[in-house]
Amino acid sequence: MELEGVEIEDTFAEAFPIKVARVLITAVNEKWAMEAAKETTGFGTSVIGCPSEAGIDKILSPEETPDGRPGVAIMICHFKKDGVKGQLLGRLGQCVFTAPTTAMFNGLEAEETLPIKLHFFGDGFEYEKEVGGRKAWGIPMMEGDFICEEEYGVKAGVAGGNFFILAKDQMSALTAAENAVSAIRQVEGTITPFPGGVVASGSKVGSKKYKFMHASTNEKFCPTLRDKVEGSEIPEGVNGVYEIVIDGVSEEAVKEAMKVGIEAAVKVPDVVKISAGNFGGTLGKYQFKLKEVLGL
Amino acid sequence: MELEGVEIEDTFAEAFPIKVARVLITAVNEKWAMEAAKETTGFGTSVIGCPSEAGIDKILSPEETPDGRPGVAIMICHFKKDGVKGQLLGRLGQCVFTAPTTAMFNGLEAEETLPIKLHFFGDGFEYEKEVGGRKAWGIPMMEGDFICEEEYGVKAGVAGGNFFILAKDQMSALTAAENAVSAIRQVEGTITPFPGGVVASGSKVGSKKYKFMHASTNEKFCPTLRDKVEGSEIPEGVNGVYEIVIDGVSEEAVKEAMKVGIEAAVKVPDVVKISAGNFGGTLGKYQFKLKEVLGL
Amino acid sequence: MELEGVEIEDTFAEAFPIKVARVLITAVNEKWAMEAAKETTGFGTSVIGCPSEAGIDKILSPEETPDGRPGVAIMICHFKKDGVKGQLLGRLGQCVFTAPTTAMFNGLEAEETLPIKLHFFGDGFEYEKEVGGRKAWGIPMMEGDFICEEEYGVKAGVAGGNFFILAKDQMSALTAAENAVSAIRQVEGTITPFPGGVVASGSKVGSKKYKFMHASTNEKFCPTLRDKVEGSEIPEGVNGVYEIVIDGVSEEAVKEAMKVGIEAAVKVPDVVKISAGNFGGTLGKYQFKLKEVLGL
Amino acid sequence: MELEGVEIEDTFAEAFPIKVARVLITAVNEKWAMEAAKETTGFGTSVIGCPSEAGIDKILSPEETPDGRPGVAIMICHFKKDGVKGQLLGRLGQCVFTAPTTAMFNGLEAEETLPIKLHFFGDGFEYEKEVGGRKAWGIPMMEGDFICEEEYGVKAGVAGGNFFILAKDQMSALTAAENAVSAIRQVEGTITPFPGGVVASGSKVGSKKYKFMHASTNEKFCPTLRDKVEGSEIPEGVNGVYEIVIDGVSEEAVKEAMKVGIEAAVKVPDVVKISAGNFGGTLGKYQFKLKEVLGL
Repeated sequence: MELEGVEIEDTFAEAFPIKVARVLITAVNEKWAMEAAKETTGFGTSVIGCPSEAGIDKILSPEETPDGRPGVAIMICHFKKDGVKGQLLGRLGQCVFTAPTTAMFNGLEAEETLPIKLHFFGDGFEYEKEVGGRKAWGIPMMEGDFICEEEYGVKAGVAGGNFFILAKDQMSALTAAENAVSAIRQVEGTITPFPGGVVASGSKVGSKKYKFMHASTNEKFCPTLRDKVEGSEIPEGVNGVYEIVIDGVSEEAVKEAMKVGIEAAVKVPDVVKISAGNFGGTLGKYQFKLKEVLGL
Repeated sequence: MELEGVEIEDTFAEAFPIKVARVLITAVNEKWAMEAAKETTGFGTSVIGCPSEAGIDKILSPEETPDGRPGVAIMICHFKKDGVKGQLLGRLGQCVFTAPTTAMFNGLEAEETLPIKLHFFGDGFEYEKEVGGRKAWGIPMMEGDFICEEEYGVKAGVAGGNFFILAKDQMSALTAAENAVSAIRQVEGTITPFPGGVVASGSKVGSKKYKFMHASTNEKFCPTLRDKVEGSEIPEGVNGVYEIVIDGVSEEAVKEAMKVGIEAAVKVPDVVKISAGNFGGTLGKYQFKLKEVLGL
Repeated sequence: MELEGVEIEDTFAEAFPIKVARVLITAVNEKWAMEAAKETTGFGTSVIGCPSEAGIDKILSPEETPDGRPGVAIMICHFKKDGVKGQLLGRLGQCVFTAPTTAMFNGLEAEETLPIKLHFFGDGFEYEKEVGGRKAWGIPMMEGDFICEEEYGVKAGVAGGNFFILAKDQMSALTAAENAVSAIRQVEGTITPFPGGVVASGSKVGSKKYKFMHASTNEKFCPTLRDKVEGSEIPEGVNGVYEIVIDGVSEEAVKEAMKVGIEAAVKVPDVVKISAGNFGGTLGKYQFKLKEVLGL
Repeated sequence: MELEGVEIEDTFAEAFPIKVARVLITAVNEKWAMEAAKETTGFGTSVIGCPSEAGIDKILSPEETPDGRPGVAIMICHFKKDGVKGQLLGRLGQCVFTAPTTAMFNGLEAEETLPIKLHFFGDGFEYEKEVGGRKAWGIPMMEGDFICEEEYGVKAGVAGGNFFILAKDQMSALTAAENAVSAIRQVEGTITPFPGGVVASGSKVGSKKYKFMHASTNEKFCPTLRDKVEGSEIPEGVNGVYEIVIDGVSEEAVKEAMKVGIEAAVKVPDVVKISAGNFGGTLGKYQFKLKEVLGL
């Protein structure tokens, strides 16, 4: 299979269920909505080693926010609903509530909601206020009054949608990965939780040499080991590989994100192949076949 | 006291001991060093509700980095040394190691060091390599090889250096706070851990109305409550207040950061007063008198 | 009249006919499309003292560009059609053609087109190529091949649409102006040609004191002269005023830009009034009444 | 010759005399100093087809500016002194004077100065004011008062310092060019006037096929023509080439800029060669040998 002259491997991405919340952060301008969003979603690349997975979903125009101000939508993902709640309390309370000019609102319609009660901080000076048809609280603070909703939808989503970008060299692979992340930024309901949206390292389960390691480098996917290991999966002429990992509120959202991300990546010169990561279909609940994702 | 026509209150900032590590992240360009730095230091505004305090210290020119590439210095702060170690393992392992083109090196000379052993991830394919006179490891991965040191200095630092910016209105206070943060970004060995470096909320210990709250809004410092509470500390004509909180590797670094931050803030039109936060000198080990900090 | 609590003066903006061209610049990523766009449209605030008026219209997603890459739409405006042609030759030839990874395409359907023949630069090595259903040229150069169309639509547009933002202080007025510019950036077919989209100076025709000056400061609109001149138009309590000037491909586009710009501006705290600039309706062909623009 | 494993061709850059002015633009923050600087220096890549060459020299910290605010230094270059004067009047008057919160000051000590008299715009309301030991004018305007000096140094400088970056592929060459420009941004007294600092097209004098063309593509330096023309200068395996062009206030400044730019470029993976452009030493007054520039 090919797309714009780039080989598309006939394989699939294997993904997992996860619980997802989505929050709309608004501010006096996009700069401050983004500052708050980045602080709130940092240290959130992988649930393996971070308190949660978290990332920026989408920049919101004033028409898309309850208070008519510029905003940024973020998502926070955890295997357990309680984990999502704890992370909302910690991350929103420490990183949005404290941020200049911000307000926050629920960004996910869902059957279940989690109460995130910040209004007690107002010590009795807080007040109820309708904002864009929503019931919110106003909490007096040092800069003025902070406005927030207190019920946040949570639902079953998908973690670990992914694809790989293989290029002749590292800089072409990186430029393609950057463009893929920019394109996915437009798809509502998805995040790319790794730094700048890109994964530079691949891993295999366990380790051959160090028995105490749960995971270690996947030597078959290391360009610099291509001629040193047996069965390398790195094609000749490939010197740089990046992975894009996607979490989404639904299979459809992840599928759309994979589609636009791959379409953006193959536009960059010297990208030679797109692949995806799976465990043979044995571990994950979801499978995203590149062929179907791209309609090939 | 006055500085450039702005009143300087004769008070002091009260601050606390904390353990600090400092890491140099380099990358192929400043963009990617900064992306990794932001992911690594996110969810790190206050040890009260975040896993640690963390922030960006300084942008590094190629001459300032061991591998001669562009870089960003970050700091990670925790009350306990073990806490710093756990946070370095988690944050560096998840957010620098996985980031495109990055390398990392120790950024703090100190008597004590913490071992952050990532080379086992290499599963035997890793190798030792000298970089800028330092002993580092090369670990083959998907994009190429990741380079890192494994011993990171940790020392006693200072948390909670601070000052307040009071202005006629919120936007002037915010612009002044932004400029203060930009100026402090140049002071080596200091971070402003809150979102975008700025704190919008002030708190008091406990709560009058809600006994289960450990902290609540400091109503005497809320401009919108100025005429509703007794003993408001908000002067007439002040409608916006922001706080800058500073962590540093030493008293000298925090003092210098307060100085340049205040000097930048008072340059902005409609800033009317600079103050600082303390607990009457009863709680913190360190006191930074504005008078001395500014040499007035 | 009021909008979100901000006074809207019952007045109108007076505007003029101008000739407009619109160009789509694409690149390997948005960064480089924007770099080229800024270089191309610089030194283009006002036809009074610049070679032309020029500015950035809109950031383009890959779906909006002929070659499926990220892009930026720009507009170039001159009183005369020949002036537009000369400016297209100079600006596109010097600032897009020379820029890394860029391509350029016509961005305006119009009855008349201007030939901008760059393919001769190829010295016979150039070749025709279809891109997105358009007839384009490929010109071999140092980085690879430059792709461009050679016929650019030109039509009668509108210059000098405008509104004024009056605020309690300069920083609030400036933040409101920034937000207005961001909002107008989304309206296709419009630019705000001044630096960062904002005008800091107002002028009157001629000068009372210096007879050799064709224009001089409009003292009645200077906050710092409020108490020094008779008949000041600056309301009490206003200390900062900015103007947004808009050029557009049509009256409808300018009207929409004024609407979204004003709606964004009034959201910023401490903005107190919106007005507009005119010459009593004696000079300009177009009048944009704020009442009608805002549907009040 | 080699630098960090990259071949350095034993050749030289040939450069020309030009007249240079340098202006310090300050603003309430770096954002607005930069917005004004970009507008002011746009449409300024080459004196061949632009009104002048112009670019951003350096970001200035508050300590480096007369008024203690953040700033950006720019340079404007023209073959003739009168040309510099006309360009200062036009560019500063239209693009700095009109920009929010800006002030401007002379940035070049020189024996000769050019009068740029903007104070008449004040229509008698202007006033003299000392700023940082300099004699300046305050001119009341809509946002507040504009502050500027009126005498700007002009001196003989150097135009056309340059080097070429050859890489295995376009994206590596581009990343290297970006890094070179970032490094040169730190060298006082130099600009890289092309879009984003980078030149994508190379030219030869005249044209073989089109006699009416004064310049055309240099086919020997086109990677895509490597196998189609005789005597191609593109080495095997090179697929992307960019040029960095440098103007400076002195030979020393240009030399230093070439040095730090090349040192930054060779750090990027897959860069294979650095060269420079000359006319055999027959046309330009200045020669910069790569060997001497780099101390090899």
